[in-house]
Amino acid sequence: MRLSTLRDGTRDGTLAVVDRSGRRAARVPGVAATLQAALDDWQRAEPALRSVSDRLESGELAGEPFEPRSALAPLPRAYEWVDGSSYLNHVVLVRKARGAEPPATLESDPLVYQGGSGVLLGPREPLALPDPGYGLDFESELAVVLGDVPRGTAARDAVGLVRLVLLANDVTYRNLVPAELAKGFGFFVSKPATAFAPFAVTPDELGGAFRDGRVYLRLRTTLNDAVVGDVESGPEMHFSFADLVAHVAKTRAFTAGTILGSGTVSNRDPARGVSCLAELRARETIERGAPETPYLAPGDRVVIEAFDDSGRSVFGSIEQTVVIP
Amino acid sequence: MRLSTLRDGTRDGTLAVVDRSGRRAARVPGVAATLQAALDDWQRAEPALRSVSDRLESGELAGEPFEPRSALAPLPRAYEWVDGSSYLNHVVLVRKARGAEPPATLESDPLVYQGGSGVLLGPREPLALPDPGYGLDFESELAVVLGDVPRGTAARDAVGLVRLVLLANDVTYRNLVPAELAKGFGFFVSKPATAFAPFAVTPDELGGAFRDGRVYLRLRTTLNDAVVGDVESGPEMHFSFADLVAHVAKTRAFTAGTILGSGTVSNRDPARGVSCLAELRARETIERGAPETPYLAPGDRVVIEAFDDSGRSVFGSIEQTVVIP
Repeated sequence: MRLSTLRDGTRDGTLAVVDRSGRRAARVPGVAATLQAALDDWQRAEPALRSVSDRLESGELAGEPFEPRSALAPLPRAYEWVDGSSYLNHVVLVRKARGAEPPATLESDPLVYQGGSGVLLGPREPLALPDPGYGLDFESELAVVLGDVPRGTAARDAVGLVRLVLLANDVTYRNLVPAELAKGFGFFVSKPATAFAPFAVTPDELGGAFRDGRVYLRLRTTLNDAVVGDVESGPEMHFSFADLVAHVAKTRAFTAGTILGSGTVSNRDPARGVSCLAELRARETIERGAPETPYLAPGDRVVIEAFDDSGRSVFGSIEQTVVIP
Repeated sequence: MRLSTLRDGTRDGTLAVVDRSGRRAARVPGVAATLQAALDDWQRAEPALRSVSDRLESGELAGEPFEPRSALAPLPRAYEWVDGSSYLNHVVLVRKARGAEPPATLESDPLVYQGGSGVLLGPREPLALPDPGYGLDFESELAVVLGDVPRGTAARDAVGLVRLVLLANDVTYRNLVPAELAKGFGFFVSKPATAFAPFAVTPDELGGAFRDGRVYLRLRTTLNDAVVGDVESGPEMHFSFADLVAHVAKTRAFTAGTILGSGTVSNRDPARGVSCLAELRARETIERGAPETPYLAPGDRVVIEAFDDSGRSVFGSIEQTVVIP
C-alpha cells in the first residue's frame, strides 16, 4: 500500500491512498483526515486503508488523478525526525577528507542526530540557498515511520514497529557544519528542512526488498540530468533500522509518526557514485589533494528516486531546484 | 491567561483555561480540543480563550476543580523542542569543571540543541532512572511556545511570536554525555523526556516580568525539601528568547507550537544556589578538586517552581520523584 499527503491549504494536508501506477489517488475522509491521524490509530486505520487500496487497484474506486506537484511530504510536520548515519563508508570518507578520525565506536555505537521536524518539504519544493557560501548539498537516504516505540525496545522487537518507508533528501549546508560541530552540541543551522518523496509505502509493498530491518533498493541521484549515484541501499547499511530503534529508545519512548532516517546511502565501490556531493569531494580530496566538484548553485536540479528489481519507482521522485529565496 | 492540558486518555489531552488561583479549570471544546489546535489557529482561538478566562475569573463560569496530578505537559507532544544554553555562567562552570574551554564564540553565537519532542512529561510524572550509573540530573529552566516562525526572522520581530511561557525540567543523564558528545553529533540518549509545569501562560499574564525577550522571575528548585537553588531568571540570560529565535531561524522555518528553551537558569552569585546538580558538582570540583554531591537516586524528589514579585507560583509546580522503571 502506498500513501500520500495532498496539498489542501491546511498544515497537515489530506491523506490519500495511491495506486500501483502512481497515477490515481483516493482520499479517505472516512478513515483518517491526515497521515498522523492514521498512525495514531493504525490498528483501526490500516485495514481500512488497505481496503481502499484494493478497491482503487481493482477499479471499483475511480479515485482522482495523482499529481506529484500537489503532494506535500507524507508527514508535512512530524513529532520527531531522527537521522542515523548507518553507512560507515560515508562517515569514514567524509571524516578522512577533513583529516579527522571516525569515532572509535564507529561499528558498535550508532551515530544519530535529532533533526528539525516541524517543517518538512514536499517532493517538488525548492532547495533554498540564502547564501551561496553555505555550501548546499543533497543527501539521498531512506527513512522509516514508526509506530509507538516504548523505552527500552530491543532490536528484535523493532522491525514490527516500522509502519511505512520513505525516501528523503536530508539537505545540509556543509560550510556551516564545522563551526557548529566545534561548539559541541551537534547540527542545527547547518540542517535546513528535509524533503520527502510523495509516497509513503508499507513494508509489505517492498516485498523481499524489506528484510533484516534494511531496505534493498537501487537509489539513483541525478544532478542536472547526470547520474551522480546509483547505489544499493541494502548490503552496506551497517546498523539496520531495528538497530537504530534500539539505540534511540535506550532512554526514552517515541510517539507514533516518528521518522527515523538511515543516513546518506553510500557504497564502497566508487563506480556506484555518491548520494551527496560531500562524498565526491572527499574522494577528490583524498586522491588529488583538494575538492573539485562545487556544492550546489542556484538553478541546479536534483532528482532522487529508488527502484525495485522490476524497475518501479517505489516512492515517486524527489525533484528539487536550487533557488535564492 | 493560563492554559493547561488535562489527561483524558488521548495522546494530546484536553485543553483547559485555568483561573488565577490555579484551582478552577474550564474545558473549551467550542474553541479548541487541544493546545496544538489552538496554536494552529491562534488569531481565532486566543480571543475566545480570553473570553472563557474572563468568565471563569468573574465566576460567571463555574468550571471544574483543577488537580495538578491530572495535568499533562501543556503540549504532551510538540513538533519541535529546541533548547538553548543562554546562561553563560552555566556553560563556563560546567566546562571548567571538566577541564574544557567554553567555545570561542560563547558570547556571540548561541548554543542550542534539538531535543526530543514527541513524548513530553507532565508535572507529576516520575523521573526514570533505568541505570543508577547514568547520573540523573534535573535542569530547571524557562521555555516559550512560538507561533509560526518564518525563516530569517530577525530578533526584533521575534518577541511578537511568543505565544506562551512554560517552566521545564530538562532532564539529563550526565554520565552518558561525554561519550555521546565525543561522537560529534550532540546529545541523544543522554537526554530523556523533558517535563513541564502544568500552566502555559501568555506573556501579558507575566506583566512586567516579561520584557526584552526575557522572563524575570525567581526560580526555586528543591531536592528532598531542601532548597538547592533560588535564582533570578532575567538579568543573566545572555541571549534573550528573541536572540535565540533569530539564531535558530537562520536557515529554516518553524511551525506554530515549537517549544524553545532558555537552558539551565544560572546565577554567578553562588549564594543563589543552582538549577542543576552538575553546576553544584562543578563548583565543588573547582574549589576542592572533586565533586561531592551525588546525582539523583531512586526516591529523590525534585520540586521546581517560579514565582513573581507577588509570590504567586506562575506555572504551578513540577514535582517529580526518581524511580527505577
